[in-house]
Formats: sequence, structure tokens, C-alpha cells
Amino acid sequence: MRNGPIENCARRLEVRLVRRRWMAAFALLAFPCFLGAQHTDDSKPAVTNVRAAEYPRVHADGRVTFRVKAPTAQKVQVQPGPAAGEPSGLGAGRFDMVRDKDGVWTVTTPPAVPGFHYYWLLVDGVEVNDPSSETFFGYNKETSAVEVPEPGVEFYLPKAVPHGEIHEHWYHSGITGEWRRAAVYTPPGYDANPRTRYPVLYLQHGGGENVTGWPRQGRMNFILDNLIAERKAQPMIVVMETGYAFRPGEKPPAAGAPQVAHSTLEDVIVTELIPNIDASYRTLADRDHRAMAGLSMGSRQTLQITLTNLDKFSYIGAFSRPPAADFDATSAYNGVFHDAAAFNKKVHLLWMGAGTTEHQIHDSAKASHEALDKAHIKNVFIEFPGTAHEWQTWRKALYDFAPRLFR
Amino acid sequence: MRNGPIENCARRLEVRLVRRRWMAAFALLAFPCFLGAQHTDDSKPAVTNVRAAEYPRVHADGRVTFRVKAPTAQKVQVQPGPAAGEPSGLGAGRFDMVRDKDGVWTVTTPPAVPGFHYYWLLVDGVEVNDPSSETFFGYNKETSAVEVPEPGVEFYLPKAVPHGEIHEHWYHSGITGEWRRAAVYTPPGYDANPRTRYPVLYLQHGGGENVTGWPRQGRMNFILDNLIAERKAQPMIVVMETGYAFRPGEKPPAAGAPQVAHSTLEDVIVTELIPNIDASYRTLADRDHRAMAGLSMGSRQTLQITLTNLDKFSYIGAFSRPPAADFDATSAYNGVFHDAAAFNKKVHLLWMGAGTTEHQIHDSAKASHEALDKAHIKNVFIEFPGTAHEWQTWRKALYDFAPRLFR
Repeated sequence: MRNGPIENCARRLEVRLVRRRWMAAFALLAFPCFLGAQHTDDSKPAVTNVRAAEYPRVHADGRVTFRVKAPTAQKVQVQPGPAAGEPSGLGAGRFDMVRDKDGVWTVTTPPAVPGFHYYWLLVDGVEVNDPSSETFFGYNKETSAVEVPEPGVEFYLPKAVPHGEIHEHWYHSGITGEWRRAAVYTPPGYDANPRTRYPVLYLQHGGGENVTGWPRQGRMNFILDNLIAERKAQPMIVVMETGYAFRPGEKPPAAGAPQVAHSTLEDVIVTELIPNIDASYRTLADRDHRAMAGLSMGSRQTLQITLTNLDKFSYIGAFSRPPAADFDATSAYNGVFHDAAAFNKKVHLLWMGAGTTEHQIHDSAKASHEALDKAHIKNVFIEFPGTAHEWQTWRKALYDFAPRLFR
Repeated sequence: MRNGPIENCARRLEVRLVRRRWMAAFALLAFPCFLGAQHTDDSKPAVTNVRAAEYPRVHADGRVTFRVKAPTAQKVQVQPGPAAGEPSGLGAGRFDMVRDKDGVWTVTTPPAVPGFHYYWLLVDGVEVNDPSSETFFGYNKETSAVEVPEPGVEFYLPKAVPHGEIHEHWYHSGITGEWRRAAVYTPPGYDANPRTRYPVLYLQHGGGENVTGWPRQGRMNFILDNLIAERKAQPMIVVMETGYAFRPGEKPPAAGAPQVAHSTLEDVIVTELIPNIDASYRTLADRDHRAMAGLSMGSRQTLQITLTNLDKFSYIGAFSRPPAADFDATSAYNGVFHDAAAFNKKVHLLWMGAGTTEHQIHDSAKASHEALDKAHIKNVFIEFPGTAHEWQTWRKALYDFAPRLFR
């Protein structure tokens, strides 16, 4: 590489001596600098990159070029995050990177399915984050990701419309004995209209994720801002809590045990979170103005919690519900579907959706939909073409689900 | 290891086959599981660990035990994050980890100085994050960290007091042509008192960090919540913006260039951010009710921006200001200190502080304080014993600075 600021920057990535102008060296230390100064192609740095990182780069046709400087490694690969046992939209398997003489490793993937894709680097077989990527909490740890834009699709991008705000809301749980943090979205106009009260959607993340999932991976605030600005959705408060809650001494479910809706979480949500939210925000605190939805593990929790607490919820959304073998509409959830007329009167919306390429989940959700139809239970089934068990499915699910609420 | 849930969990860390109970495997995939089931010592998992990660563990005397499973690596070390050219409170150099027969690497450090310490793992020489740690944005990338409690020090811990909220506030900058995100803390009672207006502190992070620094590393919300509850500080709004702003086509400062307060940032803060905050929140929008402070690079920016915009600010805080060689009180900042009587009347507080073990910065700040004293400029200099160029210094700085505002 030429001897210029970029090469010097790249050198500092390796050499942790602190020079005399320590402040500059300090700030640039390990700066995922401008690896490869010239780009004559149509690629752009991914929006999921850390500030000023040039890689990964996304091409107009959806190919992704990953690059990392690791001169002392023997082998570096890109590992897409697993997506419920089926290929992620980034790729079905690992991508081997190729090393150049300066120890810079590169690979360009085939065109990826648009959307948000978790990934890691494997450095000599050890799964680590890409220093060029922001981290997102998934798989129970901080994980790298790359965002591949979908041409013509803008509903989750920030636009020149009024914006809501996501609040970090701390409260103490007597049940778990710990401080818990919920993310709460208040809609545009919330502060300007201090006498207005709003309906509430409780929105849950998937297994291995946390409260930052819907804001950061899901971009739920932009999705709601845009829907509200277009008058397609009612202004609403959205509460996002962690889908894990354990009493002191309780352990996370053992390896191999299915991720069932844990009863402790149900207790926290119903007896602690809802009253706390109703006391802290200007909510419409009745079942006609309270919805719940979730993705994957969050959708199982949603079904478990709402269908057994119909005095509290009247809108239900199950996004990519894990396969439910032998779903029996007459007996499921303590027989809640047994009296179809009563159920249809009580519940304003029962919504299920899945991407068409998360085959197992899609087929199971469709089968449940048909079983519910057969039992005369009013329900909605929406499928999203070409998306897998990934965030592009769940953004689209929220985009379809939210306008149906509170009408 | 015995054949139990923990061993199975550890196996899944390596083996990425998806079993039939895919949902459980999916959730547990790469779960930084219970490495080492029994703890007969006094150590506890660090609060900076990801959910359920047992390591790193902090002992009562401040030693830290790091552990990671990396069977295919040849060498694994712990690298403390650099702290302005002087030893971090975690350690002066790298710690070599020792591998056991199962490929689990471990090291226990000597007692660490209490506080928040950035670190990385070096896997075969490649700097990566510890999968067991949450990530925190520093050094221009996502970085691991370990929190070592300080016995008897609780001012930055969550307590049973009313809590403020941190908002994610998006706005569009015409100057940079991009969407910018500020973190805004509103004090306890903000929503309940819709006619009350509040003073504002603009609080900046250090080089290589971003808007999440003060909330996540600094725990500023708990610091303010506790001060306000004890009536030691006035309820105030705190605005935390990114300390980087570039016009289209502008590049980050070149390697080797000092991190000066970039004029584009000044333009964004003064002409865009302040009006936007005053329009979006119930602020007292005058100079007597507007303060600015920052750490390290943020303190240079603070001094540059406030001292040349005294029509906008009247309280100034410089936390760990980088060394300023040849500080001349008569000529600095366009001669703002020249007329001491006028300055002292205009500026309610000029505050400088440093940790005693960030020697260069401490000595330089002290020298500037003495130079200002000599020029009859009213100013405060506070030193924090035993802390380095790290977040424990800056938490303590905020704890000392905030009660002095808006009295």
C-alpha cells in the first residue's frame, strides 16, 4: 500500500505503541481504516458498519465483500448466523476468505437476499466479531451483522416525517429481584399532547436476543414513524421487554429443553410490567387498547401469555412461530378456541405470519391457520415471499400487523 | 466435564449442527455457558457480562479471572484497552492465558483498580471481542469491557429512587446531510410535570466513542437519578451527541493530526442541535441554563465551543483534557480570558478535573488551573486519586460537576 494516511492507519491497527501525538494515535487505534482506498465498482459500505469502516461493502446486486486485516491468522472465514436450521439469506454455509501478502483477508459472496444478516468471522476456527461491524445482541452474545438494502423498499428507513422516541425505562422487579430495562417507543406528538392517551403494543424479540432487538435490528421506530405519518397506523406506545425472566435460584432452561413461554416471564409481564407501564406512560389501560406480538420464541410467549390472559389483551401477533407439532385447535391453550363465537367476539385480531423460505415454520403456521379456519376461529395468515427466519421477515410482519391494530 | 446440561451446552459452543430440537439448539447456540460449574471462591460474574455468562469473574480483592473456550487457537491473551499512553487500571500489558486439555483458556489478573475497563482478547494475535462480554463502543469499534466494583462506592448504581429516562432522539442535519442520533436524558418527573421547564447540560464522549458512551460506560442516568433524589443536583436535561460531524466530502482527521474540535461539529451543535433540542424538549433556552462538558477529546471540543460561544453557555466542564502544551491564559481561545472581571461575571463555572494516575493529563490540567489563577480567572480544579484515563474518573467528574450547575 502507498505510504499515506491510510497505510499509517492500517499499521496502527496492528501496532499498539502509543506515539508522541498520543491523542491522535489513541483515537485512531485499531481504526477499521480505509482498507483498500479505491472503489471503482458500485459497492457501498454497509450501514451496519462502525463509523468510517469501508468494509463490509454491499454491491448493487446484493453481493457482499468482507475484508479484515489479520496477518497472524492461519485461516479466516465468514460464518452467517444460523436461521432456524435453514439457510440464512446471506448464505447456506461458511465463506473462506483469501489472504493477500499484507495479511488482508477478503471474500465476495454471491448475491444475498435483502435484509439484515447476522454473521461472525471464524479466526483459526474461533467465532469472533468483525471489528468493522457494529454489534447486535443475538445468539445470546454480541454478534456482527450486515444490512443488504432491498431496492424500492423504504418502510424501515428514516424519512422526513415526525419521529417518535425510544426510551430506556428502568424498573425493579420484585419477582426476579433485579433491575429490568424495557425499551419504550412513544409516538410522534407524545410530548406535545400531554392530555392524549395511547394504546399499547407489547412487542417481544426472539431467542438469544434482548430489548435492543426490535429497535436496532428491527428498526421498529422508523417503521412506526412512517406508518403513523402516512396515517396507516394509529399512534401507539410500543413496549419491548427482555424475553427472559428468572426467579432467584431459577436457571435458564437446560440444554435440549424447548424454549417454552416461561411462567416467570408471564408473571413479570402481567403483574409487574403492565401496571408499571400504565403508571409511567399515558396509556389507554384496557384490553381493547392492548396488543401483544413477538417473533420466534417471542411469538410462543405471546400466544401463551395472551391466550391465557384474554382479560388483558385483544390483539395477538405471532411472527414466525416455531413449529407446533400436532396443533389441535380444540384443546390448545386450555381450550380457548373451543367456543369460536365467543372467541371471535373477544379477540379483535389473531395474526400469524412467516417468510416463505423458513419452510418448516411457514408450513406449520399455515397448517395452524387452516386448523383454526376449520374450527371457525377468525385469524389472519400472511406470508412474506423469499424471506427466511431473519429480521426482514419480522420488519415486514410488523409493517403488516401494526396498521390492523386499534381501529 | 461431567455429562450434564453444562457440558452439553459447552459442546454446542463448538458444534454448529442443528439438532432436531432446533429451537433449543438455536437458542443455546454459542451460549457462553457455564464454563466451570463450581465457584468456591468469592468471585462473581462481572455485571458487564452478557446474560448468563459466568466469566469474566471479579474477586472481592479486585482480581479478574478471564476464561474463554477456543480449542483451535494457538495463543490467547487479554489485552487491556490503552488509556492515553499510561497503564489502564486493568493492567499495564497483556495477560497470557493458559490452555487446558479441553481448549479452555484462563488467566487471573492481579487486583485491578476499581472501575470500567475496556479490553480485547488476542486470538493468535488478532484483536477480537470476548464473546462473554457485552460490547461498548470505544476505539472506533465495539469493544469488550469488565466492570470492577469499588467497595463503598454506589453513586453510579441503580437505587430505589425515581428514575429519569434516556431517549433516542433522531434529527436530520442539513450540514452533514445525514440522520443524527442524540441520547437525551430527561430527569425524574419530566413527564409528570408537563408545565415545568428544565436547564440543559450538553455532555460529550471521548475520542473513538459515540453517543452510547455516557449512558452505557458512564451510567450517567443512575448518577443523575441519585444526585437528584438526594437533592444534590438540580433536575436537568442532559443531551449527548456524537463528537464527530463531517460535511459531505470531508474526511475524518488524517492519521497523526490532533483531534481538534472540528468546526463542523461546532456548527452542528450550535446551529442545529441546540435549536432542535429547545424545540423538542421543555428547556430553559438561555445561556444561564445551558452547560457543556466533555471528556478527553470531548473536553477539547467543549472548551473550543463554549469559550467561543459564551452567548450560549455559562457553565463549562473539561474532564481529562488532553495535554495542552504552552497554555497561555492571555491569548488562548481568542483572548477570552484577557478581561478577567468580565469573564468571571459571564461564566458561572469553569471546571477542570483529572485522575491522579493519568499523569500527563493531570499535570497539564493542574498547570492550566494555576495559569488561570494567575490571570485571576475563577476556575475549579478537582483531582481524583488513583484513577487513570478511564471511565471511573469521568463518572466521578460528573458526580462532582453536576451538583454545581444551575444554582
